[in-house]
Amino acid sequence: MTRIDFWYDFASTYSYPAAMRLEQLAAEHPIELRWRPFLVGPIFAAHGWRNSPFNIYPAKGRYMWRDIERICARYALPMQRPDPFPQNSVLAARVALALPDADRPGFSRAVYTAEYAQGKAIAERNVVAELLTGLGHDPSSTIERANSEPIKTKLRTETDEAQRLGIFGAPTCVVEGGEMFWGNDRLEEALAWALAHG
Amino acid sequence: MTRIDFWYDFASTYSYPAAMRLEQLAAEHPIELRWRPFLVGPIFAAHGWRNSPFNIYPAKGRYMWRDIERICARYALPMQRPDPFPQNSVLAARVALALPDADRPGFSRAVYTAEYAQGKAIAERNVVAELLTGLGHDPSSTIERANSEPIKTKLRTETDEAQRLGIFGAPTCVVEGGEMFWGNDRLEEALAWALAHG
Repeated sequence: MTRIDFWYDFASTYSYPAAMRLEQLAAEHPIELRWRPFLVGPIFAAHGWRNSPFNIYPAKGRYMWRDIERICARYALPMQRPDPFPQNSVLAARVALALPDADRPGFSRAVYTAEYAQGKAIAERNVVAELLTGLGHDPSSTIERANSEPIKTKLRTETDEAQRLGIFGAPTCVVEGGEMFWGNDRLEEALAWALAHG
Repeated sequence: MTRIDFWYDFASTYSYPAAMRLEQLAAEHPIELRWRPFLVGPIFAAHGWRNSPFNIYPAKGRYMWRDIERICARYALPMQRPDPFPQNSVLAARVALALPDADRPGFSRAVYTAEYAQGKAIAERNVVAELLTGLGHDPSSTIERANSEPIKTKLRTETDEAQRLGIFGAPTCVVEGGEMFWGNDRLEEALAWALAHG
């Protein structure tokens, strides 16, 4: 079974529809999915960007919001702009890594739904705690584990690994063997590649 | 009949498959196409970029070359990297504007084919002259007209207009009414939008 690594950042707009669509797309095919949260911030910082490129380049940002609105309408996904944008995604990413592998996809979709469908502040501990409770996890111990040194280090090494792979944005699918596909609009192509070259 | 303005730069990699695919896609539908060459350079310069972002950000550049290779393979389009990249597209853009509207698509596809399928230097006068001859145009008088003040001004005002519309990259389709679609991978969506909202 061919593996696809799905690299995503909770702050990333295009990662939202990708995360919501991916599990079902993969379920229809013999694909092993690994959900790999990381931070695009440090990679953007290496480009000299201290903010989202969608904020730095306003024309690009205006287009992205319209494009994401059309994409979400197509897939019947609610969409509202987080305020502020981008949201700080560090806590959510650490929690995602602190959870068992099997629980990561469900938590990740819950975070994206809170952020982009409900306009909640995913940087806030109580918002994340509420999501964990809703999914049957103990919020206090999970968040404590998420903020422990091993998980902090894990998020840094995952981000380093993304950069080493040549990832420069989110979401990015990396098919076993190294073929890379950037963007929500390349999900189907990544799956097709995995099936053809697995 | 709904109009789509196809904004493209001869230096742009993703404009190549878009230009090669567009005429046929539009021919299958009641769409009026306007081919509008412009220069992304001045718009990039406003971002502080004095070179292609694919050269400035190497990871993005490496991905783009692989992505465009896959795209061209899918559409059975030959692809080789121009050297240097990007090519200076000013002469080709001026010639495209100097030609009658009906001759612009054919000349534009010939330029892209020379550049990306045959690896020719489209910045060179003799290369452009050869393309014009092949299409039945008189090269000397056409290039003379292309380098006249009215055409130089026209290319500047077209580029200004692209920027005013919020265009930040090429290719970009702008459907009558203002809806904007960026990238070769949004051509079908632009056509669908034009048909649904025309």
